[in-house]
Amino acid sequence: MQEYVIIVAGGSGSRMKSDIPKQFITVNGLPVLMHTIKAFRNYSHSLRIILVLPEAHFTYWNQLCAEFSFNESYSLVTGGETRFHSVKNGLNSILDNDNAFVAVHDGVRPVINKEIILESFQKAAQFGTAVVSVALKDSIRIIENSETNTAMDRSAFRLIQTPQTFRIDWMKKAFRNPYQPIFTDCASVLEFEGYPIYLTEGSYENIKITTPEDLRWAEIYLRN
Amino acid sequence: MQEYVIIVAGGSGSRMKSDIPKQFITVNGLPVLMHTIKAFRNYSHSLRIILVLPEAHFTYWNQLCAEFSFNESYSLVTGGETRFHSVKNGLNSILDNDNAFVAVHDGVRPVINKEIILESFQKAAQFGTAVVSVALKDSIRIIENSETNTAMDRSAFRLIQTPQTFRIDWMKKAFRNPYQPIFTDCASVLEFEGYPIYLTEGSYENIKITTPEDLRWAEIYLRN
Repeated sequence: MQEYVIIVAGGSGSRMKSDIPKQFITVNGLPVLMHTIKAFRNYSHSLRIILVLPEAHFTYWNQLCAEFSFNESYSLVTGGETRFHSVKNGLNSILDNDNAFVAVHDGVRPVINKEIILESFQKAAQFGTAVVSVALKDSIRIIENSETNTAMDRSAFRLIQTPQTFRIDWMKKAFRNPYQPIFTDCASVLEFEGYPIYLTEGSYENIKITTPEDLRWAEIYLRN
Repeated sequence: MQEYVIIVAGGSGSRMKSDIPKQFITVNGLPVLMHTIKAFRNYSHSLRIILVLPEAHFTYWNQLCAEFSFNESYSLVTGGETRFHSVKNGLNSILDNDNAFVAVHDGVRPVINKEIILESFQKAAQFGTAVVSVALKDSIRIIENSETNTAMDRSAFRLIQTPQTFRIDWMKKAFRNPYQPIFTDCASVLEFEGYPIYLTEGSYENIKITTPEDLRWAEIYLRN
């Protein structure tokens, strides 16, 4: 049973007040994306890692790999128009059609640990899908319109992270659907195809780096 | 027009892996709760600050005040059985019945800035209520039952923080209702009484310290 991870790093960095896309910013001596790749390699030496990058970033990435003497093994695939298309390109590069599991992970979530990755693959093997999630720490309100909003029971909700791991046959079937704006993550694509989504426990440290403040958070956790 | 803040610090610290309730833990040379009080004093010298603490913590708190030579002015009120009762005790200590505004703030949210407090009082003056909130960074799913969960549109939701600021007459009226478990924050109490909840913009830094990791986050932001 082969395990894969598709690491998606298509962001343009527009929210970072920086010309460098956030996945390329150096934290504790290494670009964010290299921390992410190393975390998955650390989970398993037989895992096949597929990195999806916009073609425009290939040259810069290769320069970084040379500069940081980065020599983990992975295959490089060209990103698409949206995250959905990028994941699909990564998925199409996998020849297996069954008896394999595919995790999808955000390149800008470097603070991911072995235990969460392991549980994600284990539960996907058992249930077909495994999506990492955490409980809400704050109260939550739903916005009905510009005038009104209402308190909701926060225990009824889970915030969704990555990895999101799936049976390859289910995933390939789901990704044959044409793109829709509701496909904000892989779970929503599998759900659309009718597959049940099994939720596993993530961690609050596993943040998606979207602001300069998030980089300082990553700095703390990647130090350990 | 008088402004008040009720700072609620009733937590027992059970989630902190520490015998010291989290509001008393020292971060960057000062207990968390003192950082919080100073942030409000920094907003305005005429603001009246009401600190609500469990009676069992009074002695310890007074020792801390002596130890850290803490001499901001505030009044001390005994906490109640739940957060609702603690806020109510604070509210009952205020003699004004109109022409005043009351912010309620978590003692364990020390990373609060002047601008957010100012906007909270300004919008409460305009709309009667002002509740600090932030957009969701992650996808969200709703748990229907132990078997199923469904993707939701995250843009329809807001995570709720404090301060939550209200017209004193509305607040006193709402807090006359008997306690209910759905009263997880002050906004839910005012909403129950039928008042519209106006949401203002918070910040991702304004975290509620609930875990040891959160203390390290506070450490970064309180340094600036």
